[in-house]
Amino acid sequence: MQTGELISVNFDSGVLNGAHVLESARTLRDLEGVFRDEAAYRAMDPSKVIYRTQFFLPVPEGLEGGLFWGTTFIEPGRVGDEYFMTKGHFHAKRDRSEYYVTAAGSGALILMAEDGATHAQFMTPGSVHYIPGHTAHRVANTGDTRLSFLACWPSDAGHDYQTIAEHGFSARLRCIDGKPELVAER
Amino acid sequence: MQTGELISVNFDSGVLNGAHVLESARTLRDLEGVFRDEAAYRAMDPSKVIYRTQFFLPVPEGLEGGLFWGTTFIEPGRVGDEYFMTKGHFHAKRDRSEYYVTAAGSGALILMAEDGATHAQFMTPGSVHYIPGHTAHRVANTGDTRLSFLACWPSDAGHDYQTIAEHGFSARLRCIDGKPELVAER
Repeated sequence: MQTGELISVNFDSGVLNGAHVLESARTLRDLEGVFRDEAAYRAMDPSKVIYRTQFFLPVPEGLEGGLFWGTTFIEPGRVGDEYFMTKGHFHAKRDRSEYYVTAAGSGALILMAEDGATHAQFMTPGSVHYIPGHTAHRVANTGDTRLSFLACWPSDAGHDYQTIAEHGFSARLRCIDGKPELVAER
Repeated sequence: MQTGELISVNFDSGVLNGAHVLESARTLRDLEGVFRDEAAYRAMDPSKVIYRTQFFLPVPEGLEGGLFWGTTFIEPGRVGDEYFMTKGHFHAKRDRSEYYVTAAGSGALILMAEDGATHAQFMTPGSVHYIPGHTAHRVANTGDTRLSFLACWPSDAGHDYQTIAEHGFSARLRCIDGKPELVAER
């Protein structure tokens, strides 16, 4: 039997192992404009890694019918009263969906429909989150330890970061009296 | 924050929990014609459950861009020298792919291309298996305990069991000298 192309996941940490796993990182510098507290952002080390990803892309990006697999690891911390979080994106092909499954830590999945309606779901080890098509998604680490979650998404979904970079989410997850609270913008 | 629609997975057992998880079972009776040893098959209790599934189907079957999630649990055992296994299928929409991720137990994922080329991959807790489009897939439990694996597949993939029911796989996983061996048919 064959084992060559296999990858494995450590369910406790979310870490993927395998020859074809791609790694990347986003530093605070990469998250310019994401957090509301500009002064707090400027006061921090721009080279600080906020989150890392591991991707398994067994077929070419853009192929219809294929699926990708990955893990995202978000460090604990805040910029002002906002938790460390991912940039967030719609899929370029808007009807494409995705699963997030939490491996470790605690956080919040922030979902925004195209009409701007935003809500959040608790993430805790083992929680399974379906992200429907036409829904922007972002994850914030609300805990004191690294948050890790698995993801599965179509290989032709693509990423539209630009819409979020320009318009943001309609609500922000802020730490208020020590607890995460989703606060509408304006 | 919202928790209502959430489901969770136990990574140790593969068990899904949630209000919208659908359960079904396949008994030996449902697997008529699957195993080569007809006499051994006839001698067994036809109501014996060979495998069970839990499915989370958050969107209608057939929707393009959506994804389904599930777990399959295969009991340990054999019919003659063949391990308990799933029926196996192509996707009705042939280019649709799928992931299997092993939660518990040990087994083999048997993959057959449309030209009949068949190979098998070891399944062990944490192993991540990409099933490309145009590839029939079946899982056999080669261990002494329940085999559980998670799955994620497109909501418009569909199932074509008929092609396998008529033509079978081009190779069978048999227990030879106590070990699983993939043996070509004829």
